[in-house]
Amino acid sequence: MLVSSTDSVGTKLRIANALAKHDTIGIDIVNHCVNDILTCGAEPLFFLDYIGIGKVVPEKVGAIVKGLAQACREVGCALIGGETAELADIYTGEDYDLVGFIIGVVEKEKIIMGKTIAVGDAIIGLPSSGLHTNGYSLVRKVFGETKSVLNANYPELGRTLGEELLEPHRCYYHQLKPLLPIIKGMAHITGGGLVGNVPRVLPQDIAAQFHRQSWIVPPIFQLIQQRGNVDRDEMYRVFNMGIGMVVICSPEDVDRFTKALPEAKIVGEVVKQKRKAQVIIK
Amino acid sequence: MLVSSTDSVGTKLRIANALAKHDTIGIDIVNHCVNDILTCGAEPLFFLDYIGIGKVVPEKVGAIVKGLAQACREVGCALIGGETAELADIYTGEDYDLVGFIIGVVEKEKIIMGKTIAVGDAIIGLPSSGLHTNGYSLVRKVFGETKSVLNANYPELGRTLGEELLEPHRCYYHQLKPLLPIIKGMAHITGGGLVGNVPRVLPQDIAAQFHRQSWIVPPIFQLIQQRGNVDRDEMYRVFNMGIGMVVICSPEDVDRFTKALPEAKIVGEVVKQKRKAQVIIK
Repeated sequence: MLVSSTDSVGTKLRIANALAKHDTIGIDIVNHCVNDILTCGAEPLFFLDYIGIGKVVPEKVGAIVKGLAQACREVGCALIGGETAELADIYTGEDYDLVGFIIGVVEKEKIIMGKTIAVGDAIIGLPSSGLHTNGYSLVRKVFGETKSVLNANYPELGRTLGEELLEPHRCYYHQLKPLLPIIKGMAHITGGGLVGNVPRVLPQDIAAQFHRQSWIVPPIFQLIQQRGNVDRDEMYRVFNMGIGMVVICSPEDVDRFTKALPEAKIVGEVVKQKRKAQVIIK
Repeated sequence: MLVSSTDSVGTKLRIANALAKHDTIGIDIVNHCVNDILTCGAEPLFFLDYIGIGKVVPEKVGAIVKGLAQACREVGCALIGGETAELADIYTGEDYDLVGFIIGVVEKEKIIMGKTIAVGDAIIGLPSSGLHTNGYSLVRKVFGETKSVLNANYPELGRTLGEELLEPHRCYYHQLKPLLPIIKGMAHITGGGLVGNVPRVLPQDIAAQFHRQSWIVPPIFQLIQQRGNVDRDEMYRVFNMGIGMVVICSPEDVDRFTKALPEAKIVGEVVKQKRKAQVIIK
């Protein structure tokens, strides 16, 4: 079965523009797309990119493509082509949009759809590398996006805000590939956070219960929450809060999972759905 | 073999925005993509769209998707998904970008690559429905893009300028599909015109010679040339000039071609390349 997906990096691009650093934004979109199709068990075959840009600056486009190529190479995915459209009246100033299209493949009998998820199953969280590609509108609202703001150093981050915000979206393909046979369901935690993404993979009358204390929310999210005085529930609706991929498996397979991936943590369990919400964060 | 392509509609979108008419722009991008992969003999399998937009207006996105769905249905291509990204700081005002991504399929032994094109082969032109999706930056420079300019009626067009400019990109799939076995090479005439697109399919040391008198350049192109005082060579480098698809076949297959498609015209022939140019327009 062929599986495909499309997405853009969103306003993370504004941070890249403010810092004139374009060599990792390509990694973001490739890894985002690879993770998206990985959730149904697919491995990437090939990738195409679209860059809509006000004015083609060769070094800028070169840096973007360098990131795309690097991330594609790392997952054995062919970067077979793309299009760069110079649309001065649509994209103004330094602005551009970067869109990725991915095609992957999975054997029909190996598609992961979450159908076998049952009460008592374990929920495992894999750490994110930061914001990945979501929540940048809120973050920019809280901090602004000037160069001086982005170049400020934060002891709790151990680096500048800009470096933290441009940290590439992590790819889970290599870690999860050998474990696919024991995975019952997977959710890539993008816009909408745990609350918005986990229900996609849950069968009816089944809910996912997370325990906040079971993982450490990385400092960047605490910083955003404090600086922006953002409501905790909103934080969990907008950001991944430190969990980039959620995996659901049988309790008896948890050991195999955590042995293979020591950084993976049990962050909750599958329960019977009692109220409207399919995701409970305790 | 899987074949894929990606492209955007470009600044034709500005005309759609000026006239607040968004139900045909989806047809444009689907047909553009279908024609692109048709040039190597592929038939469309599925399509994904990406809409980057400043503010999601449901009626607007609905109209865009209506056009996408209609065009996909007409070629039996599945519109399997897409992404609408609301990026207020990248797309300002009414602006948006519409990107298409298509996957098609062709038997390996039936791929059309132009390798067998030889001196003496016939060049057949299929009429375009107008500008298709290219040359809109120049057209907007010549006429502007205000509502009053676009609503002006032109007797030579038999309609308003805006109606002419929003005429959907024509799809050649159904007409050409039964003729694929006798086609040696094909070029979809997009940005770059005959000069920019035909060389892609020509083998080394082979040139395509077109005869200007062999087809009638539609009134819209004459209008643009006159109003903008545009150099004739530039017109042929920017616009399709009335030929949306170029097909190359053996002289003995021409009859079969023109019987099946009465609107198809012999517009030139394949010759030995003498100078640097692989496309000669006499």
